[in-house]
Amino acid sequence: MKAIVVGGTAAGLSAASKAKRIEPEVEFKVYERSGFTSYGACGLPYLIEDRVKKPEDLVTLTPQALTNKRGIPTFIRHEVKHLDAAAKKVVVENLDTGERFEERYDKLVLATGSSASLPPIWGIEARDVYVLKTVEDAVAIKAKARQSKKAIILGGGPIGLETADALRGCGMEVEVVEVQPRLLPFFEEEYSSQVAGALKDRGVGLHVGLSVQEVIAPNGRFTACRLSNGHVLDADFLLVCAGVRPNTELAKEAGLELGARGAIRVDERMRTSDPDIYACGDCATVHNALTGKETYIPLGTTANKQGRVAGANLAGRNAAFGGVIGAQVVKVFDLFLAACGMNLAEAKAEGYDADSVRIQKGSIANYYPGGSANTITLVFDKKDGRLLGAQGSGDDSIAGRMNVFVAAVTMGMTVEQINGLDLVYTPSVAPVYDPILIAAAQAVKKVSGTDD
Amino acid sequence: MKAIVVGGTAAGLSAASKAKRIEPEVEFKVYERSGFTSYGACGLPYLIEDRVKKPEDLVTLTPQALTNKRGIPTFIRHEVKHLDAAAKKVVVENLDTGERFEERYDKLVLATGSSASLPPIWGIEARDVYVLKTVEDAVAIKAKARQSKKAIILGGGPIGLETADALRGCGMEVEVVEVQPRLLPFFEEEYSSQVAGALKDRGVGLHVGLSVQEVIAPNGRFTACRLSNGHVLDADFLLVCAGVRPNTELAKEAGLELGARGAIRVDERMRTSDPDIYACGDCATVHNALTGKETYIPLGTTANKQGRVAGANLAGRNAAFGGVIGAQVVKVFDLFLAACGMNLAEAKAEGYDADSVRIQKGSIANYYPGGSANTITLVFDKKDGRLLGAQGSGDDSIAGRMNVFVAAVTMGMTVEQINGLDLVYTPSVAPVYDPILIAAAQAVKKVSGTDD
Repeated sequence: MKAIVVGGTAAGLSAASKAKRIEPEVEFKVYERSGFTSYGACGLPYLIEDRVKKPEDLVTLTPQALTNKRGIPTFIRHEVKHLDAAAKKVVVENLDTGERFEERYDKLVLATGSSASLPPIWGIEARDVYVLKTVEDAVAIKAKARQSKKAIILGGGPIGLETADALRGCGMEVEVVEVQPRLLPFFEEEYSSQVAGALKDRGVGLHVGLSVQEVIAPNGRFTACRLSNGHVLDADFLLVCAGVRPNTELAKEAGLELGARGAIRVDERMRTSDPDIYACGDCATVHNALTGKETYIPLGTTANKQGRVAGANLAGRNAAFGGVIGAQVVKVFDLFLAACGMNLAEAKAEGYDADSVRIQKGSIANYYPGGSANTITLVFDKKDGRLLGAQGSGDDSIAGRMNVFVAAVTMGMTVEQINGLDLVYTPSVAPVYDPILIAAAQAVKKVSGTDD
Repeated sequence: MKAIVVGGTAAGLSAASKAKRIEPEVEFKVYERSGFTSYGACGLPYLIEDRVKKPEDLVTLTPQALTNKRGIPTFIRHEVKHLDAAAKKVVVENLDTGERFEERYDKLVLATGSSASLPPIWGIEARDVYVLKTVEDAVAIKAKARQSKKAIILGGGPIGLETADALRGCGMEVEVVEVQPRLLPFFEEEYSSQVAGALKDRGVGLHVGLSVQEVIAPNGRFTACRLSNGHVLDADFLLVCAGVRPNTELAKEAGLELGARGAIRVDERMRTSDPDIYACGDCATVHNALTGKETYIPLGTTANKQGRVAGANLAGRNAAFGGVIGAQVVKVFDLFLAACGMNLAEAKAEGYDADSVRIQKGSIANYYPGGSANTITLVFDKKDGRLLGAQGSGDDSIAGRMNVFVAAVTMGMTVEQINGLDLVYTPSVAPVYDPILIAAAQAVKKVSGTDD
């Protein structure tokens, strides 16, 4: 069997590797249009800041290793330009030579990823306007940052904020413009305040509830932004972190069904509407295991898992992806913010008689040196106490705590069951009543209607 | 209603506080024989080392705060000497004045805690032989350590090892003698090796598989230990960390039923065999929620939870304690070791067709600075893949990861379900495939009999 994989990062290589382990007879070819395979895209801000020294450090598997060690011939700077699903063939272009050639497949995996969205703003195509999506983008921003004093970041989502942190680490002045009325609006307002405080403490300028009306670019080169309140912010460059959109050109050409946010619709086995084409990763939809709804949440973890499922099924297994519950964590300077499941508004919109509690508690025993406050919000069904979602902030320990809530939401645990968990304890990792238990106990009171 | 609580630390004060919040009419008196209430006993090693500066830092609630703010009159250095359950009264001695008096109760809470076990070794009653159970013990050891060069610790369990760490932090030479053939024998051998390595790296002498045959104490003052291999180890003092035994003198006097390891038998509502007496904390039994068996695992977290349950029931509620699954974490220098549920031998002894996997994986993305290796062992039922227990080691992130396994064991999750968890991810807190998922994926292979 001949299999072609379009896209050689998380999803595509997970698919090929998994399939090859199950069925070594499958003849794979992987085409990746960028110059790097298998890189950790979430590490790009750290490459800019030099916490990660060189692009190669982000690469888990080189084309050579894939080709020679895994038996998966992998070609970088090769872009699949056309897909003829009826004839089961693709047209590939070698981006260095311009040469084009055809390849036939028995099975195809679309792991085309996503591209940075560029909002429709006058002048946004100017020079010195950057996006951060590929290793090449990061390298260009890193070089530009070295000879610059000030940057504007358009978009205060996780990538925008992590990059603000990175550019401050480069010694630059940074201004963040966010069109929403507050940062990270999925979170409760308390967390938006915390992250705004963390940014201001480190000297990042914030312009929240404002949009960029115009990119001022005399001679085609960025010099400033005009905001919706009329203010003009000048800087050496503009970085647009305004979300991503799935790369679906090939899917559209092949007439594949699209779903949420225009991503390629897949079932839990990662099958598209064409029986010989799988899709996975940032180009594909995902289903929310909590609501049962199709959604689009492009994340590296999901890409890896979907890729494995696609690969297993391609190789004849019967694997299914269990979906996501919107688990996320973002680091902004020393503040970590994490969430999973629904926030209160979503839970109510889903028809739950939902309520929430918020607590603050030290991350470790109060007498032990170090630690910080953990803030935790639980969203639950008042009827039966079932946990529907959680949010939290604090030091990096909030990640481990959030993962307990991930397990709880996934398993439909009640806040009473969480309150009874026999969590590990030593003073250097937790208070004797872990913040998880404090939060659950508060929620139990609301569910039971008692106040003790 | 008059209620007396014997013991004013974790369990007793949790009981009184919970009951008082539910039913302010209950008239409490709390008697604590030591000079400190409500202290974090798990912090005692850090008091020795001066990471915790003074005993008061370990105290959450003083007798004054309990008496005046919570309305719970609390008396330190008051020991309950006798219990007449038929007449529902106790005899209390003021340890400072020697005065004795009687008090009647309607309900009694026994939170008498545990005492350090002293193995039957010739000479162990000598001066300069210490145990570490109370604040007073820690203060005495701290003073002694300041004028000493070398200590021997008898017992390589969590308290012995944490105190070895603390005494090294004081600049002392430390030798640990452990009778078991390896340290922390509940853990797999790999972890025993890791902890032995961590101790040796920091210059702690280890004498494993050996017992102390004799305490050499000319003139009644400790000078050396003779080990079972004939070697004589000299030191300035000996610290005995050979486990604890429940304090049950009053319970025996009252004819209460005893259970596992001689602890006071309680049901899930913390009731003893006397309908007017509750027991909770280190003096009481606990049931293992996984095996359903009565056991004795004295830990601070359990004491707090059992205390709340006892207090709620005393105040007329119907609360139950869900039991424990043996969750624990111990810190030895920079190495954290954690476990929950059963180890492989226990699982087999319980009749499971059990198997295990062990993996190593970085705690964070390999390209992100910092982090360390996490080692994780999963024990599972080969029949259906249900997780039965977990062990792990690494940096402090292993605590959060172990708590995910705590939730999983508690909810009866299969390794396949764990493998599907939508865990949070950012490079500074986890690799894109979290060690939790790597471990679960390995276990899935064993359960399914595949190897890809």
